[in-house]
Amino acid sequence: MHPGDRIALDRAGESVEGVLLPSSTDDHLVVKLESGYNVGIDRASADPEVLATDVHDVESAQAETGESEVAFDDDLPTIALISTGGTIASTVDYRTGAVTAQFDAEDVLRAVPELAGRANYRGRVVANILSENMTPEVWAELAEAIADEIEAGADGVVVMHGTDTMAYTASAIAFALDTPVPIVFTGSQRSADRPSSDNVMNAVSAVEAAKSDAAEVLICMHEGSSDDRCALHRGTRARKNHTSRRDAFETVGAKPIGTVEYATGAVEYRRPVDERGGEIDRAIGFEDGVERVTFAPGSDPSVLDAVADGAGIVIEGTGLGHVNRTWIDRIDSIAPETPVVMTSQCVEGRVCDRVYDTGRDLLAAGVVEGGDTLPETATVKLMWALANRADVPATMEESVAGERTDRSVPWT
Amino acid sequence: MHPGDRIALDRAGESVEGVLLPSSTDDHLVVKLESGYNVGIDRASADPEVLATDVHDVESAQAETGESEVAFDDDLPTIALISTGGTIASTVDYRTGAVTAQFDAEDVLRAVPELAGRANYRGRVVANILSENMTPEVWAELAEAIADEIEAGADGVVVMHGTDTMAYTASAIAFALDTPVPIVFTGSQRSADRPSSDNVMNAVSAVEAAKSDAAEVLICMHEGSSDDRCALHRGTRARKNHTSRRDAFETVGAKPIGTVEYATGAVEYRRPVDERGGEIDRAIGFEDGVERVTFAPGSDPSVLDAVADGAGIVIEGTGLGHVNRTWIDRIDSIAPETPVVMTSQCVEGRVCDRVYDTGRDLLAAGVVEGGDTLPETATVKLMWALANRADVPATMEESVAGERTDRSVPWT
Repeated sequence: MHPGDRIALDRAGESVEGVLLPSSTDDHLVVKLESGYNVGIDRASADPEVLATDVHDVESAQAETGESEVAFDDDLPTIALISTGGTIASTVDYRTGAVTAQFDAEDVLRAVPELAGRANYRGRVVANILSENMTPEVWAELAEAIADEIEAGADGVVVMHGTDTMAYTASAIAFALDTPVPIVFTGSQRSADRPSSDNVMNAVSAVEAAKSDAAEVLICMHEGSSDDRCALHRGTRARKNHTSRRDAFETVGAKPIGTVEYATGAVEYRRPVDERGGEIDRAIGFEDGVERVTFAPGSDPSVLDAVADGAGIVIEGTGLGHVNRTWIDRIDSIAPETPVVMTSQCVEGRVCDRVYDTGRDLLAAGVVEGGDTLPETATVKLMWALANRADVPATMEESVAGERTDRSVPWT
Repeated sequence: MHPGDRIALDRAGESVEGVLLPSSTDDHLVVKLESGYNVGIDRASADPEVLATDVHDVESAQAETGESEVAFDDDLPTIALISTGGTIASTVDYRTGAVTAQFDAEDVLRAVPELAGRANYRGRVVANILSENMTPEVWAELAEAIADEIEAGADGVVVMHGTDTMAYTASAIAFALDTPVPIVFTGSQRSADRPSSDNVMNAVSAVEAAKSDAAEVLICMHEGSSDDRCALHRGTRARKNHTSRRDAFETVGAKPIGTVEYATGAVEYRRPVDERGGEIDRAIGFEDGVERVTFAPGSDPSVLDAVADGAGIVIEGTGLGHVNRTWIDRIDSIAPETPVVMTSQCVEGRVCDRVYDTGRDLLAAGVVEGGDTLPETATVKLMWALANRADVPATMEESVAGERTDRSVPWT
């Protein structure tokens, strides 16, 4: 049995087939799978069967699959890096569009040398768009790509994404995928050609988070104005709260769920997170025609009619989730045929329509209470629920991906 | 000359006419004006002329004008308390509607005894509505009422208002009135019948702020979760950022402009404020048909058509003020005939459409940059500018009432 042979063997109870690669250690066999992934298998317990000798020499195998010349280290986890147009894996500003459709470990390490030695990498480009041009169609493509990478063996996924709509996409992925490994979104507030760029620290921290024991969709960005650590936000509870600061992202109403120390790569979680394991589960699809409307003094309720031929409406009410009398009457004529979900423009806190007359009138008119679901997240969730769930109101009132917290268990 | 005589005299160069009241000091004459206000005039420099003797006995004068039996103290400033439906001057929840159309110093002190000795009070009810039912028409009535009180001699004004839309109304008044005295909005997050009610501390602090040297429209509410002080927010820079906390109000992007220590009544300003003095100036009026629209992935640009037959549109874009390509095209067909103002859904930071292609395309399409004007404030301002200014875009790009800050002078 030599490098270049096609072999079959058992790995964790499943049959694996691929081309044997040279290994940097004596303890492990490294096999390149059809998917292009390399897996490391404990040599002592492996019982390999040689299917054909020398069917591929290693160089041609690498060339065919785009395998980089960066040595595969079977002691390291494999992280899939998926780009949607973010600046991190590219040394040029993503707005110039100079990202190629596929990129390998070498490309990644050329762009961010600080990633070397932390993982084996596999790159994939799903889109190359400005973040403000992100669409629900691309959310779906991204979800499929992430799921494919996880099924092919990725131990974690890093998604590089423009910051403007990162929280929307992270929410979409959190609803679409029940993931067994971390899916970590990251990006840069400042492009790589600026001295204050945050791309290196964010990329390194995102990779460390993707290696951690958390089966969650997270956002990894600068925690403060210094360069010592990144915050990890639950994708469904985060928002971009500042137009330009590097620490623009916030977990609304609580501290971030975790942190990554840049110097050590140590990942810590403040609150319980889902542990690694299980299979990836897909529920991918987003209904068009969900609109978000903000109520304010002087807002004409006819704006509700304008959007009511769509699939659903998310309202940002005032305070605990209020609108005026004319809006309540208009909602009464729309809901519940068109789902109308109430959130609050306060950003923090939770909608509670059981306290005051206005709220009780809204419930009678058919409004679904969003609890403390963020308006942005509620909009994405409603698009997802309409495409994937039979009982949309019940879905909106439960927590599907950590987007809704229980008042009796306050986040700290 | 005796109490009850109608007298005329000069006060600060102006002729004043009214009924002489009993005074608690020998140093001052106290005269009840036609407006119902009492003014204190230095006895030594006064040169009063008796127009008629005993035309009103004091008791009937008090009864006619609703003057309270609470002694007028001519050493104290006079504060006008204007209610729009807030809970503070009422011992019952404002939602039950148990506020009378007029109330006097006695009513105020019965509701909040802690206000005694801080000022002479005069009460006025402009509206008795739930804050979510506030309208631009009531903003205009409120502006007229405040201006009338200031012209009649009020040394400061406290406006009691429900918290849901307080920031919108405070912005409206800040644009409508150029004030020579403080106009301080306050309210309660918790009604007076709850042990944790914030009504007493907020009312007391608002009165102290209304006595301070600041010709500004301010919001006075709990600063933190403790009961030691209130924050003063500039009306055009504040938002209700939490659905239920007593410290729900925040000055966006900076510390509050000032504080009031509850124990001492001491008012401190962190940043320069306009000083007292001059005349009240009215520019009252708000155009109907201004709508605010939030852009997000999947938002259909047809929502812009739905509101484009109105007077103007405020967009909450992503990040620095971005929307996608289809929205830019739609804006191009609407603006500049219909003013379209760009703000950011990030809440903090400022719109800058000169950095990226998307922004430059938006400027070419006729978008007006909102700078760091809050989306809520920008909406109120656009309604005001359309009714009061010939050059609406230029008005939106300048700071009229402290709503727009200069990047080169960061708030701290």
